[in-house]
Amino acid sequence: MTTPKIEFNLTDSRKQKPSEENLVFGRHFTDHMFIADYVKGTGWQNHRIVPYAPISLDPAAIVFHYGQTVFEGLKAYRAKDDSIRLFRPEENFKRLNRSLDRLCMPQVDEEKAIEGLLELLKVEEEWVPKLEGNSLYIRPFVIATEAFLGVAPATTYQFYIILSPVGSYYEEGIHPVKILVENEFVRAVKGGTGGAKTAGNYASALKAQETATAQGYSQVMWLDGVERKYVEEVGSMNIFFKIDGEVITPAVNGSILEGITRKSIIELLAHWGTPVTERKISMEELAAAHASGKLEEVFGTGTAAVISPVGELNWNGKIMTVNEGKTGALSKKLYDTLTKIQLGDEEDALQWVTELTPSFVKIG
Amino acid sequence: MTTPKIEFNLTDSRKQKPSEENLVFGRHFTDHMFIADYVKGTGWQNHRIVPYAPISLDPAAIVFHYGQTVFEGLKAYRAKDDSIRLFRPEENFKRLNRSLDRLCMPQVDEEKAIEGLLELLKVEEEWVPKLEGNSLYIRPFVIATEAFLGVAPATTYQFYIILSPVGSYYEEGIHPVKILVENEFVRAVKGGTGGAKTAGNYASALKAQETATAQGYSQVMWLDGVERKYVEEVGSMNIFFKIDGEVITPAVNGSILEGITRKSIIELLAHWGTPVTERKISMEELAAAHASGKLEEVFGTGTAAVISPVGELNWNGKIMTVNEGKTGALSKKLYDTLTKIQLGDEEDALQWVTELTPSFVKIG
Ligand SMILES: Cc1ncc(COP(=O)(O)O)c(C=O)c1O
Ligand SMILES: Cc1ncc(COP(=O)(O)O)c(C=O)c1O
Repeated sequence: MTTPKIEFNLTDSRKQKPSEENLVFGRHFTDHMFIADYVKGTGWQNHRIVPYAPISLDPAAIVFHYGQTVFEGLKAYRAKDDSIRLFRPEENFKRLNRSLDRLCMPQVDEEKAIEGLLELLKVEEEWVPKLEGNSLYIRPFVIATEAFLGVAPATTYQFYIILSPVGSYYEEGIHPVKILVENEFVRAVKGGTGGAKTAGNYASALKAQETATAQGYSQVMWLDGVERKYVEEVGSMNIFFKIDGEVITPAVNGSILEGITRKSIIELLAHWGTPVTERKISMEELAAAHASGKLEEVFGTGTAAVISPVGELNWNGKIMTVNEGKTGALSKKLYDTLTKIQLGDEEDALQWVTELTPSFVKIG
Repeated sequence: MTTPKIEFNLTDSRKQKPSEENLVFGRHFTDHMFIADYVKGTGWQNHRIVPYAPISLDPAAIVFHYGQTVFEGLKAYRAKDDSIRLFRPEENFKRLNRSLDRLCMPQVDEEKAIEGLLELLKVEEEWVPKLEGNSLYIRPFVIATEAFLGVAPATTYQFYIILSPVGSYYEEGIHPVKILVENEFVRAVKGGTGGAKTAGNYASALKAQETATAQGYSQVMWLDGVERKYVEEVGSMNIFFKIDGEVITPAVNGSILEGITRKSIIELLAHWGTPVTERKISMEELAAAHASGKLEEVFGTGTAAVISPVGELNWNGKIMTVNEGKTGALSKKLYDTLTKIQLGDEEDALQWVTELTPSFVKIG
């Protein structure tokens, strides 16, 4: 791994860290951030770690008007031996580059990005929470900074990595959620940006989420935008079904986000000898499976919750209770295995973890 | 019209204005901007006109990550008598509110917004270009400013109006463009955000535009995301067809943007006694009309160009030349009439114009 020239401008006045009890998601940020600048013709430059501070942009910056922005989300976990562990960070930067491409934004150097992240983590080491279940959420993002009101790819960008200590997704252990199947709004369609982790997809999802929350559902399940029949994903998670012993997840089709947790579960189950079927799956099929008692488990997958068992699906008012509203055996086993691998409590058989000892030698 | 309490903080050091010859679009900005702040529970506040200056936002501001941002675009024209004229500004703020609603963002007070715009124009009066064809482009926009990495509507926002002197869309008079019908990418789908003027729609369009430009086409024509058969709109314009004497435009369906130029043309043609048919129109129908010599005119409509005649459509490699690649009589008549109404050279029969004399009394 080549070391990029990263400039360091570190602060003397560290913030008071929030209490690790009741840490909320996405509200606290660490003392520093990583930045790089892009100028068309010159490429990425000025890789630096600087105090966390406001971003100053011209009011005509393209990101405000035409939405050229993509992001990533991953976590750093603290193991019992105090080492810090990242789960497949290279996958996040690969996906960042796929998203950047879809939005006509310049590619980042994946190795340099990881190097920047590792250097930032070294500086912010003490911010990685110690309490079980807590972690340091990592948010890399790229924004178009050029001041220009024309609809065209920008010629200047900034790449940021910010860090936020977060609490456990499950305060009282893994438990099932209730999901509303969305019939009116569509998250993404083939030919659109659904496969990219870009701002517009999330903005468009807010309206449906609002309705779901008002009705007591924690997330919406998106159907495809063309036929409104096939399951796409859930809120900010991919979705898996266990039907009559078979594990099924919607095939990647251009409109769903290729989750890294999804990929890891497919690989883990293959490693265990139970391959996952990736294919289209319709609501009718799910309802039929439910009616015949064969819909055994439903679970969402994503960085935030790792595994989120689904206890109830509401499809046009038809309520389908899954596994009596309890966490299924497979969901639990996947959750336990993945979190143990992330925390170093189980062998990392598939070599997913980048481990950083307190002196930050890569040994994973 | 109630007058909001607007605070003025004006600069002494005015910028040098760019030459009015060869003014490019969206690169120059005036000395001041209008801002208002929104805080959930309190509403809009701190309406102010301040020097044009960078926006400073927390790196975790929701606009960077989840795309809660909407905008508008309209123009101020200078008439021969030196008065300044706005074309249907109330329609823009109505549409802003519809866009805000789709993105779960707070409504603005339309009257106060117009008042803010008029006050800003008063301050920036000298920035409204004098050269024929030039104008002052007005860009209102609202962004979510809260620093929070959760996918949820923000609790704080800012509303801006910035101004940019721009050149004529047509340097050498109105002339037809070549359009590529897009088959791979989709701008928007029913249930998505296509009907809103929000950043994500434009970001998603860049990729298709890139391909079109590379092939020598000025814009893409979008087809519907479901059947990929029906015409939606063109780049940043709505689209009209004249077939065998009938003027047809795609009906508003939730996925196309309701253009104010589109609306005005429908109203103007009704006023002239030639109602426009608003309905679905497929590429097959267009190709058949072309084959039988009945596709008489095609033109795009939007604030930037007013009317943009289409001289060629490329649909899967099939080239359809329209009106021998020349500007049609109806396109020309609509262009002339609308620009004359905007500039005060023709009677404003439909009462579209808000006129500001140099002392800024509304007389329109
Ligand atoms: C829309 C969407 N789908 C799925 C996922 C799951 O992806 P991952 O497993 O990489 O976190 C995410 C991200 O968290 C997401 O935002
Ligand atoms: C996507 C899109 N369609 C159509 C239009 C035309 O709208 P208007 O006539 O209000 O300018 C615009 C805006 O200019 C646009 O951005």
